[in-house]
Amino acid sequence: MSLAFKLDYLGTAFHGWQRQPGIPTVQAALEDAFSALTGQHVPFIGCGRTDAGVHARSYIAAARTACLIPLAKLPLAMNAKLPQDISIREAYLVDDQFHPVFSCNTKEYTYTIHNGRVRNPFYKDRALFVPAELNYPAMCTCAQEFLGKHDFSAMRTLGSNVKTTVREIYAVELSRQDALIHIRIRANGFLYNMARTMAGTLLYAGLGKLMPGDISAILTEKNRSAAGPTLEAHGLCMTGVWYSEPYAVLSTAQDQF
Amino acid sequence: MSLAFKLDYLGTAFHGWQRQPGIPTVQAALEDAFSALTGQHVPFIGCGRTDAGVHARSYIAAARTACLIPLAKLPLAMNAKLPQDISIREAYLVDDQFHPVFSCNTKEYTYTIHNGRVRNPFYKDRALFVPAELNYPAMCTCAQEFLGKHDFSAMRTLGSNVKTTVREIYAVELSRQDALIHIRIRANGFLYNMARTMAGTLLYAGLGKLMPGDISAILTEKNRSAAGPTLEAHGLCMTGVWYSEPYAVLSTAQDQF
Repeated sequence: MSLAFKLDYLGTAFHGWQRQPGIPTVQAALEDAFSALTGQHVPFIGCGRTDAGVHARSYIAAARTACLIPLAKLPLAMNAKLPQDISIREAYLVDDQFHPVFSCNTKEYTYTIHNGRVRNPFYKDRALFVPAELNYPAMCTCAQEFLGKHDFSAMRTLGSNVKTTVREIYAVELSRQDALIHIRIRANGFLYNMARTMAGTLLYAGLGKLMPGDISAILTEKNRSAAGPTLEAHGLCMTGVWYSEPYAVLSTAQDQF
Repeated sequence: MSLAFKLDYLGTAFHGWQRQPGIPTVQAALEDAFSALTGQHVPFIGCGRTDAGVHARSYIAAARTACLIPLAKLPLAMNAKLPQDISIREAYLVDDQFHPVFSCNTKEYTYTIHNGRVRNPFYKDRALFVPAELNYPAMCTCAQEFLGKHDFSAMRTLGSNVKTTVREIYAVELSRQDALIHIRIRANGFLYNMARTMAGTLLYAGLGKLMPGDISAILTEKNRSAAGPTLEAHGLCMTGVWYSEPYAVLSTAQDQF
């Protein structure tokens, strides 16, 4: 059996998920905490390599090891060793076949825009500040053009090797809450910088720089230069990852008493 | 005429409102930004001396000076010189009789408790984490005993000179939102640490350490040791300050387009 963990992290203080020598990363923090707690030096495998400044809620990481600490006590024991920016919410036993990336069937990213007149310090490092009036209905309309299976070559940054640039988008849901606009994207997978570029393209739709029909054309033509910009990392949060049975339980969230 | 500003700040990076030599404070940041912008070195007077780590929304500060920059452009011009943790939302012209403290008739503080099983990194520095089950209805019931005019000697920390320890509480409103409990207190004024001690006393009610009737008795007997603890600064936010006419306009808030 292996261990799996569900965790939240505020990405601001980290240089992303992946361990790199000499700088703080989420993976290193987890491996170091587990080592301090159990004496075992084992690699943690994450459900995605988030970039520097990107946040996560209900992130799943796994380690192929046993642990003498009871599962129910493991989250709090790990949290005592982890920085305040990371919190393990649940620990699970999974069989060795489980892999946080390859067992996953759906992932969700949420990009948050603070669309106000004046910057708000409470959104610092958590939302992209856009002090221009946005056409929110136009953003909602254009977002639907992303739905379905497409080649997303126009919505990625080169730099990673992938077998295919085709991904299927299950949902793009926009919501407004005070001056915040949340763009929630669920897909079977994301290319490098794809969520941030999709958000930037919807921002262009909100600014009137793209019209209905343009996103479909950009996807078909694989025209990266006609798409919107890759928005800054700090507005992005990985907000969910779903697994096929028997791992579906990993995606439940319970925080309240 | 004088200038008045409405601002928000995230208190985490500051050693409170009041200027102190060699350490970052909100007052110093405002005075330095105004000086960098206009060349004028003038003192800024705040509506309250918040402690290190305490946040504020719709805080009012004033400076007895004129300014050649148009009022409508002053907030953005100041924000360009201020750290990201502070944001000026509005600037006003007020007559020289206006004083952020003495012209004020009502102030509001909100204390936020994260009442969950596991800590949440997104609430770090913004809410007090209490991982014990709380009796929320009991907290709501006991809160009503604070209403009205009382001697609040039992709910303060010594260390400031005040003419009277009598204050009038206009409202204590509790609300729940996911795992957060907000305790919103409106009064004609607050003694040193009074909001944090009232919140600590309501936390004791939630933990079953105080019963209905106890708060009234503590106030009457001026019994500081029977009250709850002074909760940590990072859960506290000054959330409003109201002025008598003709300054009532200072308390309006508009952020959305």
